[in-house]
This record gives sequence, structure tokens and C-alpha cells, in this order.
Amino acid sequence: MKDLPGMPGTTGGLALRLSQLFFSAAALVVMATTSDFPSVTAFCYLVAAAGLQCLWSCSLAIVDVYALLVRRTLQNHRVVCLFTLGDGMTSTLTFAAACASAGITVLIDNDLDSCGHNHCAQFETATAWPSFPGSPHYHLFS
Amino acid sequence: MKDLPGMPGTTGGLALRLSQLFFSAAALVVMATTSDFPSVTAFCYLVAAAGLQCLWSCSLAIVDVYALLVRRTLQNHRVVCLFTLGDGMTSTLTFAAACASAGITVLIDNDLDSCGHNHCAQFETATAWPSFPGSPHYHLFS
Repeated sequence: MKDLPGMPGTTGGLALRLSQLFFSAAALVVMATTSDFPSVTAFCYLVAAAGLQCLWSCSLAIVDVYALLVRRTLQNHRVVCLFTLGDGMTSTLTFAAACASAGITVLIDNDLDSCGHNHCAQFETATAWPSFPGSPHYHLFS
Repeated sequence: MKDLPGMPGTTGGLALRLSQLFFSAAALVVMATTSDFPSVTAFCYLVAAAGLQCLWSCSLAIVDVYALLVRRTLQNHRVVCLFTLGDGMTSTLTFAAACASAGITVLIDNDLDSCGHNHCAQFETATAWPSFPGSPHYHLFS
């Protein structure tokens, strides 16, 4: 396994992980603070997926901080497999949720032109956040 | 490079490629035959993505047939790289389009309960087809 910047257990990896946590938390907060998101299934799904992504990123950020503090590498084959699997699942879920929400946002804004009596700006912001995942691609390093 | 079933230039690979072509063509035809798909941006995007997927699968199926006829292997590093890149791009586009269309289909069916005066069944069928991609995962073989 080569030593590349952004691997788990390095400062670069931690920075990427924290950016992933920040963007998913931002999407979660912006979407959850609109009053009418529960009326659309796709927006509920986005909140659920962003919540799961937050929990996953937060756990892995804690693991990264611990590895940095005790100066241990996380380049064990099993650990990298587990991280790749989890990252793949959470990022696919978040991507699907963002796509579904984007479809509905475009429908409300462009096709129906009913942005006046909706929280359009908030929906669009919440949909755009997960598009900057900053997700470390562990499979490149394994 | 190991010799695995489903590689490009083998009968298994051709079968997977033809199933990919069949499912994307089915989604394209079902969606394009509804009269009101151009009124929703996500459905237009699905038609475009399924069309691109059809063209890509069709070209690669022809390459596979040629390789089988002249009994040449397609296990050159550059060829596999090109196939992986193209498969990755077309499948991501199709997945995003299917998610966006699914979000809108669920909105029409569950949230608005307005399936009566829409081509709901056709929209749902067209959205479900690309979920069976049968896409050969070339990166597993490279």
C-alpha cells in the first residue's frame, strides 16, 4: 500500500473527513429547518441520508483524530476495506437523495414556476451541499 | 490481468452488455412514448441519459461481437481504461437521471396523489428500468 496524502489516519484524511462532515451537516440543517420538507418524500430521504452521512463522517473523524494522537497508521487491509464499504454505501445513498431532491427542486423552480410560495432557496441550498462531498477515495489507496 | 467471466470480448461480457442495452432502450422507449414527458426537466434528462447509455452499450456490443468473431482478446490496458471511464460516466449519468425521475414519480404518486390524470405507470416503469443495469464492472478485472 503506497503512502499517499489524504489516507485515513493522516492530517489530509482528517481534513477531507471534516469537510465531508461539514457539507452533510449543512445540508441536513438547511433542509430540516424548512417547515414543509416532510410533505415531499425525497426531501425526507435527503434528511435521512445526510443524517447517516453525518454520523459516519463524525465516527471516522474521531477515529482519524485518535490515530493521529497515538501516532498509529490505519493502513491495515481490513480497516481500509471497512472504510471503503461504508464510504461507498453512504456516498451512494447521499448522491441518490441529492439527485431526487434536485429533480424536485428543478420541477418547482423551472417547470411549475411556483418558487414564490415555497422555501425554494433553502431547498436548492440543501440540495447543492452534498455535491461537495470531499470524500476520501480509499479504493485508490488500497 | 486475471481471466474472469464477464470480461470485454467474452460471451459473458457480450450478454451483460446486451442486457444493459435492452434495459436502457426500454427506459428510453417507455419514457419517450408518454406525451407529457417534456414538461418535466428530470424526465427529459432521463431520456437524454438513457439515449447516451444506449449508444455507448450498442457500440461496445459491436466491439464485443467483433472481438468474438476474430477471436481477439480485449484485455489491453488502454482499452480496459477507456471502457471503465466510459462505463463510469454513462452509469453515473443514468443513475442520477433515474434518481431524479424517481423523486418526481414518488412526488406525483404518494405526495400529491394525482396519478389519475398522469401517465404514472409509464413514468414508474421508465424510472425502474435503468435500475437493472447489468453493467460489467471492468475495474474489478483490471
